[in-house]
Amino acid sequence: MNAAHRSGCPINLTLEMLGDRWSLIVIRDIIFGNRRHYRELLTRSEEGIASNILADRLRRLVDAGLLTKSDDPTHRQKALYSLTEPAIQLVPLLVQMGAWGRRHAPASPALSIRARLLEEGGPGLWSDLMAELRSLHLGQPTSGPSVREALQKAFEEALAAEHGSKIAHS
Amino acid sequence: MNAAHRSGCPINLTLEMLGDRWSLIVIRDIIFGNRRHYRELLTRSEEGIASNILADRLRRLVDAGLLTKSDDPTHRQKALYSLTEPAIQLVPLLVQMGAWGRRHAPASPALSIRARLLEEGGPGLWSDLMAELRSLHLGQPTSGPSVREALQKAFEEALAAEHGSKIAHS
Repeated sequence: MNAAHRSGCPINLTLEMLGDRWSLIVIRDIIFGNRRHYRELLTRSEEGIASNILADRLRRLVDAGLLTKSDDPTHRQKALYSLTEPAIQLVPLLVQMGAWGRRHAPASPALSIRARLLEEGGPGLWSDLMAELRSLHLGQPTSGPSVREALQKAFEEALAAEHGSKIAHS
Repeated sequence: MNAAHRSGCPINLTLEMLGDRWSLIVIRDIIFGNRRHYRELLTRSEEGIASNILADRLRRLVDAGLLTKSDDPTHRQKALYSLTEPAIQLVPLLVQMGAWGRRHAPASPALSIRARLLEEGGPGLWSDLMAELRSLHLGQPTSGPSVREALQKAFEEALAAEHGSKIAHS
């Protein structure tokens, strides 16, 4: 601990490092949406993040050691953002945030399906997801089916069912 | 979901409801320090919360349905703050914040001991702690030994050991 921290409490330090809510929103979009470039983080943002806030949070997250920034070998002009091991270890925290939000906040059914599957899957599923993220972002060898793809598929099915039921009821 | 929310994602909604980091710091102090009055939340704050921030966050947490405010039967002049059921269900999220912070931030050993015990205790211990909080804050019948007291004792022992070793090394 140094003078820049208000206390050595691990909960306080986590809150200090993650700063405001936009930092975790950016990490969420990289983890679950596999958005690795500034442009897609900006234009595909569900919450409509502002460009200056996104640029600031990406810089802060790199400075804090939660993201790394590199040249994308397939797009010369674009920087590629990758999760670091500490950022990958935020998965259980994000799962608990999703679990709480779908119980105590007006979460949309389609956007809640991944939160529910992750909660029900328990620590084993979180580990599988973290292994997959290590493969995608840290270049570690991968194995087993993709948790991210399974979550995405469930989300798209829930979305389709929601639209279907809206049409059926209209 | 209504227009006041940026999206229906449960993670986003959790971050929106908890607002900035001070809200969770206040909830942490009520849960683990059993601080129920404005004055003790202010003067015993490890992070030195400012009085205007504390007053604002207490009001916001009451408005959001995470705390209730009532007259303290034993202190006529003092308001007593109590956790609601949604706030008690933040325990698993706080556990994950503590677990992450003690690995990836410069947490102090004494302040990390409760985070470690909660992490190692797993969901069973979190449930026991939540049952104890329901008894303290919602008047539900209690049973079993106090998790809060066990955590406090471990913290005080770690603190004493830390001071002892500082004296031994000086």
